[in-house]
Amino acid sequence: MAAFSYPASYNIFRCSSNRDNHDHKQKLNNIRIVGASGRSSTKADTLSQMAGVANTFNSISNPVVENGCIAKEELRQNIPTKKQSVDRHRQGIIIEGGVGYRLTVVIRSYEVGPDKSATLESILNLLQETALNHVWMSGLLGNGFGATRGMVRNNLIWVVSRMQVQIDHYPIWGEIVEIDTWVGGSGKNGMRRDWLIRSQATGHVFARATSTWVMMNQQTRRLSKMPEEVRAEISPWFIEKQAIKEECPEKIIKLDNKARYMNSNLKPKRSYLDMNHHVNNVKYPRWMLETIPDEILESHQLSSIILEYRKECGSSEIVQSLCQPDEDGILKDGLRQNNDISLLNGFSLASEILGSFEKLPLRYTHLLQAAGERQNEEIVRGRTTWNRKMPIMPFST
Amino acid sequence: MAAFSYPASYNIFRCSSNRDNHDHKQKLNNIRIVGASGRSSTKADTLSQMAGVANTFNSISNPVVENGCIAKEELRQNIPTKKQSVDRHRQGIIIEGGVGYRLTVVIRSYEVGPDKSATLESILNLLQETALNHVWMSGLLGNGFGATRGMVRNNLIWVVSRMQVQIDHYPIWGEIVEIDTWVGGSGKNGMRRDWLIRSQATGHVFARATSTWVMMNQQTRRLSKMPEEVRAEISPWFIEKQAIKEECPEKIIKLDNKARYMNSNLKPKRSYLDMNHHVNNVKYPRWMLETIPDEILESHQLSSIILEYRKECGSSEIVQSLCQPDEDGILKDGLRQNNDISLLNGFSLASEILGSFEKLPLRYTHLLQAAGERQNEEIVRGRTTWNRKMPIMPFST
Repeated sequence: MAAFSYPASYNIFRCSSNRDNHDHKQKLNNIRIVGASGRSSTKADTLSQMAGVANTFNSISNPVVENGCIAKEELRQNIPTKKQSVDRHRQGIIIEGGVGYRLTVVIRSYEVGPDKSATLESILNLLQETALNHVWMSGLLGNGFGATRGMVRNNLIWVVSRMQVQIDHYPIWGEIVEIDTWVGGSGKNGMRRDWLIRSQATGHVFARATSTWVMMNQQTRRLSKMPEEVRAEISPWFIEKQAIKEECPEKIIKLDNKARYMNSNLKPKRSYLDMNHHVNNVKYPRWMLETIPDEILESHQLSSIILEYRKECGSSEIVQSLCQPDEDGILKDGLRQNNDISLLNGFSLASEILGSFEKLPLRYTHLLQAAGERQNEEIVRGRTTWNRKMPIMPFST
Repeated sequence: MAAFSYPASYNIFRCSSNRDNHDHKQKLNNIRIVGASGRSSTKADTLSQMAGVANTFNSISNPVVENGCIAKEELRQNIPTKKQSVDRHRQGIIIEGGVGYRLTVVIRSYEVGPDKSATLESILNLLQETALNHVWMSGLLGNGFGATRGMVRNNLIWVVSRMQVQIDHYPIWGEIVEIDTWVGGSGKNGMRRDWLIRSQATGHVFARATSTWVMMNQQTRRLSKMPEEVRAEISPWFIEKQAIKEECPEKIIKLDNKARYMNSNLKPKRSYLDMNHHVNNVKYPRWMLETIPDEILESHQLSSIILEYRKECGSSEIVQSLCQPDEDGILKDGLRQNNDISLLNGFSLASEILGSFEKLPLRYTHLLQAAGERQNEEIVRGRTTWNRKMPIMPFST
């Protein structure tokens, strides 16, 4: 249902009407929800749509050229007004007994890096695409970036508060993958969206992802409770299934300027902005990963990333990216950087010991923060885990 | 047949064996071709494949998980050994009497900018993808980035020397487009690849593109003549049809450091590198466009781009991007920048005159050159034309 949108505004973290007096320490799940009146429920309509899982595919009127003009945006986008069960052109189908969505895609040439395997950014893009297509198939999509009709009527947009991706195997150029996605409830006013990426040929799971979403009023930039109208639209799609089971979500510490790596003066490029005119949340990991030493990026592959979104990032923002390796990471980083593998705390290291180090994953903590006037305001906290690269052919499971 | 690859090495522009004594003035069509022995012709085989247009789709063995290992790269990529007429997963078909290729795609959420229309980079990516899929469908694809089996055997890769794209209408998020591509001969040793992007719903032409390709020896980095073996593979696919008819190709002047706009110290990011470990030629326009003033990028849309590739750009290169508006562009740029529309060369401008200026396209000349040790070595020359943005809905044809 939800789609990637821009991260929560700093206004999310305050509840007063004073724009300049906000408290960053307040956590997302403790905030007071403001505004957003619920409209008349359309639950009956939504449920009748739900019942129509086996409906035949509704053909959508094609855009036409009239009087030398290209047809209207809505026609060109082909947004359906009713739930679809098959989307032939996107190669999507409704699954999970009518509430989940599966996209089949071939990894394209421009989605892979020099090693022929899909980049993290491509994977995040495909997750975003799957989520948006899911809303498209639901027949609920308004004009917004993944917003339902009820959300558009209430001037609400989705904002992501947390995202976690685990990648066991990277799909390669030309490989066919199936991406499943579905949604569930998260607290009173939130939503969870999960994904699973599989090899189409073998069913082998390549990656898992989960995310948490809340609604924001597009004008006031404040979090909103979920209006009844919207709850009626989306709650029939909620299921319990989880792609990643977390006993207790890992807490990400806040880095300060003592962090080992820092990239300053980062400016959002035009290509980073999404349809909501803010930096697309898929772009943040790019800034995070650019702080990690090249030699680590060459020898290792990201196996997990957690992102905690704190505030939205506008196009005029100046951003700082901080990065701190975990203790064992520092050790390994140091060994590599100094090219001195014979001494560690005064002890000589046998190659076996070093070899076992090599097998350990590296872990980094990240922070993107605003520089300039809004200095040190957090944008995103992150946590990444890296495993040594294995040869593509064959690699063990 | 050909696919985007990295641009011609500076070695292309010299023919001696001395790496450091080269002459940049020598033009591509005047160069002496070196090396590359022709192997035994496989024309008979290729022609028999050509005859098989109506063949049923050959099913390709699926990759499997054996002993806990993911299958080999070749299996995962599903590269066919024989010509295919339909590629269901990529939604591609063979057209033009058996030699052209058509891909049907839905414009994805991450391929559009804040205005919901596809970005230039997305369009270039899709052209690249279509070209590579065309080679894939031909059954000739080797392991390389668009190289045929014969090219792989001769250690040859494709390098693009020129690319021209004309965009009349930008497809928007969710729009279904058909991208046709085909190839033709270009001189004795080159190949032309053309494209046409159409609205799937109406057949309306959105964009046209043409490009010229030559072969380079991957080890020596020198241009190669086309071995007979490769000619036999690809020439049966050549047709005369042209997407853009040019009476006489526009000459792009070389800019110097007096150019009006300059971005220095540009470093290729890891994400810019393609499977050949060089900057993908699709990334160059990004550097070019970043020199153009923001207000022009906001009010205007690129309607045409010509790129002349001069040398390849490695990952360690430092790049400078120069940009010069045409005379009328300078005038308009100046008016905008000074926010002073009342005086021009001492004359007062009626709003009608200014209005007519607004309708003229803006034109810029570009140059990307290497900084640092290889200072002022040309990488790419470019030429862009920009029209004022029209509202998406509806826009006139």
